[in-house]
Amino acid sequence: MVPILSYLLERQISPQWRGLLTALAEEFEAQIGQDELRQLMYRVGCRFATAHELPPCASTADLADALNARWQEADWGYVELSDEPEYLRIAHSCAPLQAFGSAALSWTPAFLEGVYQTWLSALGADSLSVAQVSEFDERATLEFRLGRYPG
Amino acid sequence: MVPILSYLLERQISPQWRGLLTALAEEFEAQIGQDELRQLMYRVGCRFATAHELPPCASTADLADALNARWQEADWGYVELSDEPEYLRIAHSCAPLQAFGSAALSWTPAFLEGVYQTWLSALGADSLSVAQVSEFDERATLEFRLGRYPG
Amino acid sequence: MVPILSYLLERQISPQWRGLLTALAEEFEAQIGQDELRQLMYRVGCRFATAHELPPCASTADLADALNARWQEADWGYVELSDEPEYLRIAHSCAPLQAFGSAALSWTPAFLEGVYQTWLSALGADSLSVAQVSEFDERATLEFRLGRYPG
Amino acid sequence: MVPILSYLLERQISPQWRGLLTALAEEFEAQIGQDELRQLMYRVGCRFATAHELPPCASTADLADALNARWQEADWGYVELSDEPEYLRIAHSCAPLQAFGSAALSWTPAFLEGVYQTWLSALGADSLSVAQVSEFDERATLEFRLGRYPG
Repeated sequence: MVPILSYLLERQISPQWRGLLTALAEEFEAQIGQDELRQLMYRVGCRFATAHELPPCASTADLADALNARWQEADWGYVELSDEPEYLRIAHSCAPLQAFGSAALSWTPAFLEGVYQTWLSALGADSLSVAQVSEFDERATLEFRLGRYPG
Repeated sequence: MVPILSYLLERQISPQWRGLLTALAEEFEAQIGQDELRQLMYRVGCRFATAHELPPCASTADLADALNARWQEADWGYVELSDEPEYLRIAHSCAPLQAFGSAALSWTPAFLEGVYQTWLSALGADSLSVAQVSEFDERATLEFRLGRYPG
Repeated sequence: MVPILSYLLERQISPQWRGLLTALAEEFEAQIGQDELRQLMYRVGCRFATAHELPPCASTADLADALNARWQEADWGYVELSDEPEYLRIAHSCAPLQAFGSAALSWTPAFLEGVYQTWLSALGADSLSVAQVSEFDERATLEFRLGRYPG
Repeated sequence: MVPILSYLLERQISPQWRGLLTALAEEFEAQIGQDELRQLMYRVGCRFATAHELPPCASTADLADALNARWQEADWGYVELSDEPEYLRIAHSCAPLQAFGSAALSWTPAFLEGVYQTWLSALGADSLSVAQVSEFDERATLEFRLGRYPG
C-alpha cells in the first residue's frame, strides 16, 4: 500500500505553490535559526486561526467536526481527537507540509501548533498549551497534545 | 466581462495555500520593511529559477515557449515577450499573487523579478537587469523589462 | 482581455475528465441524434438536481445564493438571476461545458436546463418551464428563462 | 492506514465532475444493460486512446514510462507493468472511477480496457487482447492482462 500512499500524498499538494514554498523554506533556512523558524511558523498559524475563527463547540465531537470543516475547505487533511486522562490528543493526517520540502519538516509543523493553540484558547482552553509530540511520519500524520505543558 | 474575470482569477488560486500565504504575508509586514520584503521575495525567486532551469533557447519565440512551459506546469499564468529597441518586454498575466493578499502586491511581484533575472542571466543576459515597470493590475498583469537598468 | 479569459476558462476545466468527456461526447454523437442527446443531458440534469436538493428559498436573492452555493462547491461557475415582467432570467457564467468539446455545445447545455427545471419545480414553480434562450458564448455564458413556455 | 487512503482517494476525484458523472451513470443504468454499458465504455476508451497517442516504445520499461506520462497529465493514477510467461500484467492504481459511483464499478473499468487495447494494438500487439482480470478493489487497483484471450 505504501506506493499508493506516496502517490496520493504527492498529488495532494497543489503544484501551484510547491516550487515557491520550497524556495521560501530554503531561503529561510539560510537566514534564520531553527528556533526562530518554529516561532515564525507558530505566529503564522496564530494569524491563520484568528482569520478563520471556529464556531462555538459543545463537545469534543463538535470540535472535531468544526476543525474538519476548516481543513476540508482548504484541502489540508483531517484531524482525529481523543480525550485522554491528562490531555486532549490531536492527530492530524495529510497536512500538505511536504510542499516546503522534507528538510523543513523540523519546523513547519509549528504552523499547526499555532493554529490549534489559538483555536483552543479561544474556545476556553487558555490555561492549557498545545505541544507537538511526534515527528511528521510517512503517513503524513502529526500528533499534538493539549494539556498542562509549560507553554 | 469584469465579473467573469474576477470570478476566474479568484478560483484560479489554490485554496490549499491562500490562508497560510495571507497569514505569512501579514506576519512579514509586521516584522520587516518594504525594501527588505522585496529583497526577500527576489531571493526566493532566484532560488525558484535555479531549481527549475530553462533549456537552451535560440530565439525570443523559443524563450517564450520555454517560460510558458514552466508557468503552465505550475498554474502560474502565462507570459508574452516582445523585442523593443531598448529592452525586452515581459508581460506576465494571471500570476496568482493575490494569494498573499492585496496589500502585499507592493512586494510580492519581486518574486517574478528574481525568477526572470536568474533565468535570463543564465541564458547569457548577465549584464542586463530585469525591472518591474507596472503595478499588478485588475487583469492580474505585470510588466517587466530586461535592459540596461541600474541592477 | 480576451486572451486572459480564454486562458482562465481553459484552466478552469479539470484535466482529470476532459479527455474522457470529449471521447464520450464523440461516441454519443456517432450513435444518437441531436434531439435525443439533449433529452439525455436534460435527464442527467434532473438526476443531478434531485441528488443535490436546494434548501427553501424565500426570495430571488435567496435563490441566487442557494444556487451559487451549489455551483461554487462544484467549480461550475456562477449564476445571476433577474425578475423580468414575463419570466425569471437565469444567466449562468463559466459552466465548464467545453470539457465535452465545442461541437457538443449544441446539446450539453440541456444538462443545466434539466437542473434548473428540477430545482425550480421543487421550489413551487412546477407549472412553469425553463428554456435555454442563448447559445454558449465566448464568455462561457448561457441564458435560460423560467416562464410560461410550452414545456 | 485505511482511513488515510480513503480520504486521499476521495479527495483525488475532481469535485467538478463527480455529481454529473454519478447522475450520468444512474441514467445509463436505467436505460442500458450491463453488457452494453461495458461496450459503451470500451468504445469511449478506444476514442480516448486514439486522441492521446503513445510515442514509440522500445521496451516494457519505456512503455510504462509513456503510459504513466499520459496518466500523470490527467491525474488518473499510475500503472505498473510486468512481463509474465503468458501475458503482460497491467496493474492500474488510483483510477478515479469512483466518480461514477460504486455501483458503476462493474462496467466503468471497460474504459481502461479500451484504452489499453487501443494503445497496445497501435504498438504492434494487435493479435493480442486486453482483459480485465480483477475487480476494482479498496486500494483503487485494477488488474488487466494482455495475452491470447478470446477478444
